[in-house]
Amino acid sequence: MKLTKILPVAGLAVALPTMALAQDAAPDIQPYIFTTLLFLVGGFLVFWMAAGFAMLEAGLVRSKNVTMQLTKNIALFSIASIMYWLVGFNLMYPGDFNGYFAPNFVPTVLEPVGLAAEDAALDYASVGSDFFFQLMFVAATASIVSGVLAERIKLWPFLIFTVILTGIMYPISGSWQWGGGWLSEAGFSDFAGSTIVHSVGGWAALAGAIILGPRLGKYKDGRVNPMPGSNLALATLGTFILWLGWFGFNGGSQLAAGTVGDITDVSRIFANTNMAAASGAVAALILTQVMYKSVDLTMVLNGALAGLVSITAEPLAPTLFGALWIGAIGGVIVVFTVPMLDKFKIDDVVGAIPVHLFAGIWGTIAVVFYNGDASIVTQVTGIIAYGVFTFVVSLIIWIILKGVMGIRVSEEAEINGLDVSELGMEAYPDFSKG
Amino acid sequence: MKLTKILPVAGLAVALPTMALAQDAAPDIQPYIFTTLLFLVGGFLVFWMAAGFAMLEAGLVRSKNVTMQLTKNIALFSIASIMYWLVGFNLMYPGDFNGYFAPNFVPTVLEPVGLAAEDAALDYASVGSDFFFQLMFVAATASIVSGVLAERIKLWPFLIFTVILTGIMYPISGSWQWGGGWLSEAGFSDFAGSTIVHSVGGWAALAGAIILGPRLGKYKDGRVNPMPGSNLALATLGTFILWLGWFGFNGGSQLAAGTVGDITDVSRIFANTNMAAASGAVAALILTQVMYKSVDLTMVLNGALAGLVSITAEPLAPTLFGALWIGAIGGVIVVFTVPMLDKFKIDDVVGAIPVHLFAGIWGTIAVVFYNGDASIVTQVTGIIAYGVFTFVVSLIIWIILKGVMGIRVSEEAEINGLDVSELGMEAYPDFSKG
Amino acid sequence: MKLTKILPVAGLAVALPTMALAQDAAPDIQPYIFTTLLFLVGGFLVFWMAAGFAMLEAGLVRSKNVTMQLTKNIALFSIASIMYWLVGFNLMYPGDFNGYFAPNFVPTVLEPVGLAAEDAALDYASVGSDFFFQLMFVAATASIVSGVLAERIKLWPFLIFTVILTGIMYPISGSWQWGGGWLSEAGFSDFAGSTIVHSVGGWAALAGAIILGPRLGKYKDGRVNPMPGSNLALATLGTFILWLGWFGFNGGSQLAAGTVGDITDVSRIFANTNMAAASGAVAALILTQVMYKSVDLTMVLNGALAGLVSITAEPLAPTLFGALWIGAIGGVIVVFTVPMLDKFKIDDVVGAIPVHLFAGIWGTIAVVFYNGDASIVTQVTGIIAYGVFTFVVSLIIWIILKGVMGIRVSEEAEINGLDVSELGMEAYPDFSKG
Repeated sequence: MKLTKILPVAGLAVALPTMALAQDAAPDIQPYIFTTLLFLVGGFLVFWMAAGFAMLEAGLVRSKNVTMQLTKNIALFSIASIMYWLVGFNLMYPGDFNGYFAPNFVPTVLEPVGLAAEDAALDYASVGSDFFFQLMFVAATASIVSGVLAERIKLWPFLIFTVILTGIMYPISGSWQWGGGWLSEAGFSDFAGSTIVHSVGGWAALAGAIILGPRLGKYKDGRVNPMPGSNLALATLGTFILWLGWFGFNGGSQLAAGTVGDITDVSRIFANTNMAAASGAVAALILTQVMYKSVDLTMVLNGALAGLVSITAEPLAPTLFGALWIGAIGGVIVVFTVPMLDKFKIDDVVGAIPVHLFAGIWGTIAVVFYNGDASIVTQVTGIIAYGVFTFVVSLIIWIILKGVMGIRVSEEAEINGLDVSELGMEAYPDFSKG
Repeated sequence: MKLTKILPVAGLAVALPTMALAQDAAPDIQPYIFTTLLFLVGGFLVFWMAAGFAMLEAGLVRSKNVTMQLTKNIALFSIASIMYWLVGFNLMYPGDFNGYFAPNFVPTVLEPVGLAAEDAALDYASVGSDFFFQLMFVAATASIVSGVLAERIKLWPFLIFTVILTGIMYPISGSWQWGGGWLSEAGFSDFAGSTIVHSVGGWAALAGAIILGPRLGKYKDGRVNPMPGSNLALATLGTFILWLGWFGFNGGSQLAAGTVGDITDVSRIFANTNMAAASGAVAALILTQVMYKSVDLTMVLNGALAGLVSITAEPLAPTLFGALWIGAIGGVIVVFTVPMLDKFKIDDVVGAIPVHLFAGIWGTIAVVFYNGDASIVTQVTGIIAYGVFTFVVSLIIWIILKGVMGIRVSEEAEINGLDVSELGMEAYPDFSKG
Repeated sequence: MKLTKILPVAGLAVALPTMALAQDAAPDIQPYIFTTLLFLVGGFLVFWMAAGFAMLEAGLVRSKNVTMQLTKNIALFSIASIMYWLVGFNLMYPGDFNGYFAPNFVPTVLEPVGLAAEDAALDYASVGSDFFFQLMFVAATASIVSGVLAERIKLWPFLIFTVILTGIMYPISGSWQWGGGWLSEAGFSDFAGSTIVHSVGGWAALAGAIILGPRLGKYKDGRVNPMPGSNLALATLGTFILWLGWFGFNGGSQLAAGTVGDITDVSRIFANTNMAAASGAVAALILTQVMYKSVDLTMVLNGALAGLVSITAEPLAPTLFGALWIGAIGGVIVVFTVPMLDKFKIDDVVGAIPVHLFAGIWGTIAVVFYNGDASIVTQVTGIIAYGVFTFVVSLIIWIILKGVMGIRVSEEAEINGLDVSELGMEAYPDFSKG
């Protein structure tokens, strides 16, 4: 979001048109309606990303862990929806504050039914639409974690982590920028969340991956043992879903659609977002052909996603050519950092750390090339702040969860697959496994 | 839909702005455009639910019946589209009437191309968008039936039933409320159709399930033989699709988007709809863990859907907390009633009767908690009226179809699977069956 | 698109409201916002068709070629996005010209950030939204080619062809009509592209299929050897996705949404588009039952798509009954021409030539039945012009590609499947092949 969110207290917000004649005042409600519509349409597109993550991850895990991965995805989205209502939204958008933490633990309350125009925040949008839109972002953050830790983490510790991440951690760090906190004051710039959403998900997942350890047999005798995904059609579908949802993710983050300037900016964001995804995919396509002598579809998919993450911190200011090269570098990053993680024996099942963390950092830095207001120092400050906070807090939580209840399934369960051993339900029971 | 639909006779509807100067009159067309847009966007989202039902059902049947289930789903949607045009829409929305049946058997006619503002129903929306939106609802009703009766019903009797359901039955009973008939007059309240759409589908399916009988081997020696779905990734995708489509289903049923109050209400509906789905899923998640010691993904999926059905009768009035507990009870209902149906040897392949009928009844009752205008007596009257009419008429039709042409495939065909025996085409021909 | 696109040079376009008082001028920006919104929503729906083609084709090829088909689909979309920016858009919409070729090789430049109302093309929409919408159409064209040539074409020659098709060929021929060229002057009518998009894709594919030859073993000893698709659930999903996207494809091609007449026309287009798809599906359903004694799901899917293609040349003027019979004939065409192609030993893996080329020709002719301005002579002229140009140029390119680098994989690679032999990555590695 380019601006600090407007204070969602409708009663205070606007009183201007009430003195005017009804006829003259009529046009003044249009921006409110258009922006609310932007949030609703943008919001359902970002909702759709939850299905995208589910399909991507279900496609990239082995068939014996698909039911579990699907369960985690629908559960994490549901939990995020509840937690963000219960505390997250108001923690993240406390109204006026200029700091690190606003102890604003109150559930979200929407406007009354049949809101009168004079009670509405006419220079912004309905609270309901804003809440709907924002909660989809926190769910995206949690989805990133589930992909990295797939095929070995227990269900309930993962869900407890999700509760904390979506209810507390993400809202607190999010408030620093989008809630009007210290990073916003400092001039940090992260339009739709390369850092605030994507790298936060990546850091939380990285901490988890370190505590959890790699899958059995992944790194053996100094070699990396490939464990190919069971359904690349689903993985590709998931990527297309995410790509589609991203138009809402970035476009909706304009936070306004009721003027010529705003709707034209939203258009620019759509075009740039598409370009960055396309160039990320093409970069991975060419690079894998050159490096490995054959194209790697999973790299192309992740290249597109990395292009999307890369443009997310600044999808408005770049030209289409800017979006092209920023996205392409995102694709390159993925191709080079997926094997790098393996060298450190960090087992990221779906490649989400390269896509969301590394490309997220890149995108946040790339803001300075087209946005004259951004400074590299402040951008790096923001990247480090989000990284240190999220990584350290996540590490502590994962360690506590590990000590208290254990976070990893048994060896036997891992070998047999989580679907049968933990859930007693196969995803594809009719088909013989090869 | 909260209101009786406005009479779709554009010429009669409005003449107010024609005397005003062009410049002054200009803002008056905005509500018409916004509401029409709401129907178009809402309509394509509800269209998308047809894909959701198809994927959910294809994922929950065994692999030998997938082609048939897909065929039924695309065919029923297509038939619904034609029948609702041919007679359904005008039967359901006969204009002014206050009764039980309007013999209004005329096809839908849209406005002429390039409609002038003075000929439009400026206080509502275009007939085309309204028709488009409404026809998606009747298709949803028919989709519910196909899931319950899967894996044993013949294609053509099912499609003939669909013709009658979508062209005659649903429009007649729908007219009682949304067409301005006796239940609307009586004060029955069913915002987006927990009863009118979902329970109607459920009753029609229940009648069919009783006449058709359970699948071979489902209930044997007093035990319930589980027949797990062949593709839980598809089933999860279908659930996410339905969840997405439901924003259009409930949000579009506001039937207006051109004022601050209306668009804010639509936002509220989106947020409540999402909350009810999330809480339905979480309720099933926790309950299956507690009751069965492991989470059951298919229950979680159906829990989300039951939450959605539960909030559909009144997605506007409840607070977010209201949506949470109403949806959660929907999830609980599913977990308890799926095994209950098995006790009665009613074989509901995908769990659609618990989701659409039982949660639909619950949602229609729950209206009274937040909507001060609703009375429990009237709500129950409506539930019973739709139940008796739909169940009895469906029963008669199923019995006639059974007598005339048979509705069930042969035992041999059922054992070999409907795909090979009835259609000669496997859904997954390359894969060995386990 | 019904009209020649308005010259996308914002600065020249409009200066009218600048003299008015701010208050009076306010309503004048609404059509711009609505039309821009139409392009953004329409554009993301057409984007979604890329996923639809990918799923349809992945479902209709054999499991050994799925990874390759997915790779081609995401790659072709990405390439189309880049090429259309680099040269396509400005080649296709050169501004004022009245001819065959505008050597306008310049990349697309969007409006500056925060465009002022007085600098905007207030009677149209933002360049960004227009570019976004138009580029989705060229991607659809390229997707058609990938389906026909599946299971035997090499990746890189196909992608090189895509570069030329999307960057040069489609924009040149597109400019004849939508860019204001000679066919537009002549009165040719092709609202959303039955010919300009669909038949062009079909002609390019037909040329490729002839040069490439059929798959090994497809035609043997005078018989047609069926090679059934590996995943009909995916194919059905793809069809539903395409159907959904088509609302944007046809509806957005109204190119305006800010007046009562325009938004009502968009509604009419939505309703007609849905009707044509439904009737195409039902026609194929009934016809395959009658002809082959059992319903053929792949024909029903292609019947729906053919209905959609058929109505695309004129989705506005027909009544709903008109859409019904025009779409139904599309479905009939598919059922009869799929076997006909086999007689000529033209191996079209997914049936895209019947759907996009034959039904596209039919739709372009059918314009004359409801659009009084269209003449059969001009329609046929346009069909022939697009056919000759695209077929001949494509033939030349395919021959050159064949000579220079070879376009077909080795026999061994084809037998083993392109996934393993060309990409080293199976789509479904965990499952035994039957």
